[in-house]
Amino acid sequence: MAQNIYDQDDFFAGYAALRRSREGLAGAPEWPSLRAMLPPMAGLRVVDLGCGFGWFCRFAAEGGAASVLGIDLSENMLATARAEGGGIAYERADLETLVLPAAAFDLAYSSLAVHYVADFPRLARMIAASLEPGGHFLFSMEHQIYTAPSAPGWIDHAGRRVWPLAAYLAEGERRTDWLAKGVIKHHRGIGTVVGALLAAGFVLTHLVEWGPDAAQIAAHPEWAPERERPSFLLVGAARPGR
Amino acid sequence: MAQNIYDQDDFFAGYAALRRSREGLAGAPEWPSLRAMLPPMAGLRVVDLGCGFGWFCRFAAEGGAASVLGIDLSENMLATARAEGGGIAYERADLETLVLPAAAFDLAYSSLAVHYVADFPRLARMIAASLEPGGHFLFSMEHQIYTAPSAPGWIDHAGRRVWPLAAYLAEGERRTDWLAKGVIKHHRGIGTVVGALLAAGFVLTHLVEWGPDAAQIAAHPEWAPERERPSFLLVGAARPGR
Repeated sequence: MAQNIYDQDDFFAGYAALRRSREGLAGAPEWPSLRAMLPPMAGLRVVDLGCGFGWFCRFAAEGGAASVLGIDLSENMLATARAEGGGIAYERADLETLVLPAAAFDLAYSSLAVHYVADFPRLARMIAASLEPGGHFLFSMEHQIYTAPSAPGWIDHAGRRVWPLAAYLAEGERRTDWLAKGVIKHHRGIGTVVGALLAAGFVLTHLVEWGPDAAQIAAHPEWAPERERPSFLLVGAARPGR
Repeated sequence: MAQNIYDQDDFFAGYAALRRSREGLAGAPEWPSLRAMLPPMAGLRVVDLGCGFGWFCRFAAEGGAASVLGIDLSENMLATARAEGGGIAYERADLETLVLPAAAFDLAYSSLAVHYVADFPRLARMIAASLEPGGHFLFSMEHQIYTAPSAPGWIDHAGRRVWPLAAYLAEGERRTDWLAKGVIKHHRGIGTVVGALLAAGFVLTHLVEWGPDAAQIAAHPEWAPERERPSFLLVGAARPGR
């Protein structure tokens, strides 16, 4: 079972205070890039894997999705999401073992959740089976350059800020301290992620290494270091067939 | 025009002394991984972009390729390749401006050359057009983590060897000293490379971030640091259509 860090008090309090938690999609700097990869929501059957407070579920419902199912492991987050209403179904489940019905969805979405999953190939196969032919799987994850080091954090080298990359090809568990001690993530290379999608029968449609653009840095100068190494990987894949 | 560093005496002398130059494919540690991505050569019309001494061209010819064309900018390298014979056509051309005939090849191959090309999207479109539907484009390039820093090289940090990553999202020219001073390469992210292939109409078939495996490290302990950050990106793409 995946670590349920979002139901640990210190982590949840820290997470709930983040801009992306308080402001929703508009508070997530990578959202405009992800949104550009999305099909129109109208009429789609949507599942959000790791839906958190339900911001994307509500975006999909407001965009005219035929149905929206939000999945999360955190009771804290699901309680908040349910309280917001919006005609959305929420279910508690672990992405490590979740099985969705076959060919039941047109869009599977997942924001910053799959790096908590140990068995990504299994998840990719399960999602592929849950999509109608022609359906899409769009997700974001922490970038591999970010998850690789066991001690992530900027260092100074020769008068310049650099990211101390190491252990990129040593895939597997990483325990880091972010909002709480001992948060467990799973590092796997970009090639491994893409390979798992192709092996699951997906066609790759998008691969974006996200960092803030010039306008975002002008508005948030403190984000400038994020141009040195991408923060997030945004991935689009389609199940072939129509 | 791309820099013709291979015809600069100091660079050429250094390059010719490398194991991969003296021993050919068997001297290139990433070759077994690349070879696993290749279709059988029998009957294929093959073009090798940046063919160097012609090692791969001879591999293709010996494997029964219907025709083999080697392209390189370096007169030094082409002279050596031609002297080896093998029923292979060699032409001198710059990958920056090369135009191949349409639908004339079944396999386009390129080893460690595209990071010298400034306009990769143009090259990808040209290669796509040069392939028959169903044809393959398989290539290797220096990994993006390797090409990103303006001053690549291991550093010690907190008692550990790390790679000082910086400027990953600042795509463009890099001048580094490798075998000679001021070698010009072009850094572009993995997402940018894949995006250019998809925009050119390719379907992605392989994406491998290469580092030495355990057996290779046992034979060459000095390669162990290459597990900290991948050396090469190996990419397979296909032109859809049969």
